Amino acid sequence: MTPKHPSDSLTILTDLVLPSETNALNNLFGGELLARMDRAASISAGRHSRRIAVTVSVNHVAFNKAIPLGSVVIIEAKVSRAFKTSMEIYIDVWIEDRESGERIKSNEAIYTFVAVDETGKPVEVPHIIPETKLEQHRFDDALRRKQLSLVLAGKLNPHEATELKALFI
Amino acid sequence: MTPKHPSDSLTILTDLVLPSETNALNNLFGGELLARMDRAASISAGRHSRRIAVTVSVNHVAFNKAIPLGSVVIIEAKVSRAFKTSMEIYIDVWIEDRESGERIKSNEAIYTFVAVDETGKPVEVPHIIPETKLEQHRFDDALRRKQLSLVLAGKLNPHEATELKALFI
Amino acid sequence: MTPKHPSDSLTILTDLVLPSETNALNNLFGGELLARMDRAASISAGRHSRRIAVTVSVNHVAFNKAIPLGSVVIIEAKVSRAFKTSMEIYIDVWIEDRESGERIKSNEAIYTFVAVDETGKPVEVPHIIPETKLEQHRFDDALRRKQLSLVLAGKLNPHEATELKALFI
Amino acid sequence: MTPKHPSDSLTILTDLVLPSETNALNNLFGGELLARMDRAASISAGRHSRRIAVTVSVNHVAFNKAIPLGSVVIIEAKVSRAFKTSMEIYIDVWIEDRESGERIKSNEAIYTFVAVDETGKPVEVPHIIPETKLEQHRFDDALRRKQLSLVLAGKLNPHEATELKALFI
Amino acid sequence: MTPKHPSDSLTILTDLVLPSETNALNNLFGGELLARMDRAASISAGRHSRRIAVTVSVNHVAFNKAIPLGSVVIIEAKVSRAFKTSMEIYIDVWIEDRESGERIKSNEAIYTFVAVDETGKPVEVPHIIPETKLEQHRFDDALRRKQLSLVLAGKLNPHEATELKALFI
Amino acid sequence: MTPKHPSDSLTILTDLVLPSETNALNNLFGGELLARMDRAASISAGRHSRRIAVTVSVNHVAFNKAIPLGSVVIIEAKVSRAFKTSMEIYIDVWIEDRESGERIKSNEAIYTFVAVDETGKPVEVPHIIPETKLEQHRFDDALRRKQLSLVLAGKLNPHEATELKALFI
Repeated sequence: MTPKHPSDSLTILTDLVLPSETNALNNLFGGELLARMDRAASISAGRHSRRIAVTVSVNHVAFNKAIPLGSVVIIEAKVSRAFKTSMEIYIDVWIEDRESGERIKSNEAIYTFVAVDETGKPVEVPHIIPETKLEQHRFDDALRRKQLSLVLAGKLNPHEATELKALFI
Repeated sequence: MTPKHPSDSLTILTDLVLPSETNALNNLFGGELLARMDRAASISAGRHSRRIAVTVSVNHVAFNKAIPLGSVVIIEAKVSRAFKTSMEIYIDVWIEDRESGERIKSNEAIYTFVAVDETGKPVEVPHIIPETKLEQHRFDDALRRKQLSLVLAGKLNPHEATELKALFI
Repeated sequence: MTPKHPSDSLTILTDLVLPSETNALNNLFGGELLARMDRAASISAGRHSRRIAVTVSVNHVAFNKAIPLGSVVIIEAKVSRAFKTSMEIYIDVWIEDRESGERIKSNEAIYTFVAVDETGKPVEVPHIIPETKLEQHRFDDALRRKQLSLVLAGKLNPHEATELKALFI
Repeated sequence: MTPKHPSDSLTILTDLVLPSETNALNNLFGGELLARMDRAASISAGRHSRRIAVTVSVNHVAFNKAIPLGSVVIIEAKVSRAFKTSMEIYIDVWIEDRESGERIKSNEAIYTFVAVDETGKPVEVPHIIPETKLEQHRFDDALRRKQLSLVLAGKLNPHEATELKALFI
Repeated sequence: MTPKHPSDSLTILTDLVLPSETNALNNLFGGELLARMDRAASISAGRHSRRIAVTVSVNHVAFNKAIPLGSVVIIEAKVSRAFKTSMEIYIDVWIEDRESGERIKSNEAIYTFVAVDETGKPVEVPHIIPETKLEQHRFDDALRRKQLSLVLAGKLNPHEATELKALFI
Repeated sequence: MTPKHPSDSLTILTDLVLPSETNALNNLFGGELLARMDRAASISAGRHSRRIAVTVSVNHVAFNKAIPLGSVVIIEAKVSRAFKTSMEIYIDVWIEDRESGERIKSNEAIYTFVAVDETGKPVEVPHIIPETKLEQHRFDDALRRKQLSLVLAGKLNPHEATELKALFI
């Protein structure tokens, strides 16, 4: 399988915050943003693997900035690293101010998808070759995150999580 | 402020998987489940704090089992630990088989909410006193998760994350 | 078939009132509440019968209290009586005040479901054995309601509706 | 206030059954039909009263025929009788067969609405003068239904429900 | 095939403007109105052809009047002219004022549908015989619009568009 | 006001076709596509004008290719020409094949928006300077379309529509 670049799976979902998607403070519901990011990430994983891709996990997502009603929200998803059958998707979310056109970073999120065939069985996916400095950085971190997720799930002994261990010693 | 028990904030959201919420394999979309869990967690956080509660972050969520169209999905959310103005909400998700009535654990998720006043300013919340063994276990882990999230966000030096460090040494 | 208790089919659906579900006075639409109760009742009927359950009728539903935007609404559904293939589901709806945590009863509703097989043909369901005083009371009334509904549909001569006739003489 | 005819408030809502509105048997959800009827009835009550109209109660609704995905559903709502501030809305639902164009009656439902001012306080509504035989019949029955609903709510002694009593003696 | 009248396919969709369907100025989204008109037109085309009907094109639609939240919107769709397998649907949209009951014309739109069989292959449809003056006028214009759409799509030489050419010379 | 390029307002909305958005042939509803294009166009118009932008009209939209359930749909909207207070938005729609990654053009659409202030009053917008050959071509055609729309609305005498007239003579 020919390796791909993160940019090959770049997926942009620009949309408005509609009234039905806001909470009591008139800001976008966390849950709605999670759902939109899942759709963008799912397309991105599909573009990398050319397969059906299903959500395996959502890594840490921080909601640093409230996103008010009427905002333009830009979601950009790219595959940051591919493992055997799974892919880590890195998602950047911006809010665009209508009057100034300025973009403010509102969230980052990391989703993991697995590629499956029509029966739901996992299938292999191409490797990733990062191109930019940021892509290389996220590529490196992805292994650490994978180990962390295995440790948290009790599937990897913390002492074998070499990448992670190095962080604390 | 009088401390509360996790059971005081127990929130149960039992609902069906409708056709509009499924993906190409006829299973519940990851994004829709994330949104439902966010609503249940938001009510749970509101019950603990008696305040408006907004999503701060979603910790690791694993999607171990596909949830097919027509399933009955039971989401149970409880506050597992309260910090100064934030609360960790632990969410258990089960699928109930229609014919046998048997419940299978499909997901666990951890969301963090912060209590705010009408202007969006964080306000203090009551402490949590765990009662069951599982609640005590999740209460203890919550501190470790908080340190991890601070380390990942670059707001805490890994060497000061004493709870976390102990895991690897 | 082993008889069941009403508590065996207890279904709790706790959810928020979102902006998309409100009318011109910013209260929950009657129609949206009817839809939510239908989903909860359908799960309750499924839990009692372990079959697909379809709505047969909605008995009198009174909307005594407006439910404002942002409210936490708790819907509790239980089978109150089972007939041959049909089940009466009794639904209690509460609104929970965010600040005080107090619950106010907002509605009661009674739905009738019938259990069917995969082809849509009605199938038998277990009997109900009420346990609490309230369950016994609703169980007794259920027969009267069934007679009333048959009389109103012209399928039962008023003079043969013994339970009902006793009410007026 | 000038009295009105039922035809003055006739409201027709013709729409499709979309995939997102169906249950496990691929038929329209009971809850979705209740919601559509509520919207049509609310417009009808608004046309009679020229006021905001809110749902007070749903009388008996029978679901005699399943409505399959893709059907054309025709909802016709008319005020059948007006009391001081409340209105009874009679709703007829038909399914139209795509190939033959034939209409089959699928449901009848009766909703009660009350007219309110901007503060939610009930206000008076015009009387109804029935024109057709069917309208006269429904107008007469409406009083009996009102008494029945008062009896069921414990607000009227069965022996004073003269219209209703006559039915059983 | 027996020809039909426009009135045979008249489809009325009366519904409210809900909060989830409004833009930043609290008026009905253009996109939501386009979707509702599409559903009404699709039913109308189905009534004329007694077949599945799919949208082929939307001709010019002008949004002359904003439709505020809470409005009653009346959409009336009728087949204005039938060609071999396609139908032009003419749609009139009114807003009804709640207090006065007065109807204001808010939009006109023209959609084109084609009738297809279960495999998606176009099938013939009956002719249209206009009855009223307005129907005759729209019937005549329909041919000009068809030529225009063919010219714009590059499928007809402007000089052969006799009806259209007459307009400019 | 500094003129802008079409690329300054480029808006990309990549999303899936979900089950709730399909018709009886399991393809994307025309109406849903119209709604998505309206949202993308509205963001594009907002980016050009830095104002609230409301839909004025939808020019001819052709639905040449059915878009099946599960498809990835890419909507790209750019301002093609700006007049005094209105903007023409040109929209290209592609379907992306999951397996090959190939993009097929499925639709083109042209929407017109007007920029307004908070009271809904039209305000001036910057000019457009096309850069690519295609942008220049669409820029030139935009004037012809504006004349056509004025002629069709009866606001311009066909003989004064010089651009348009040239087409037929």
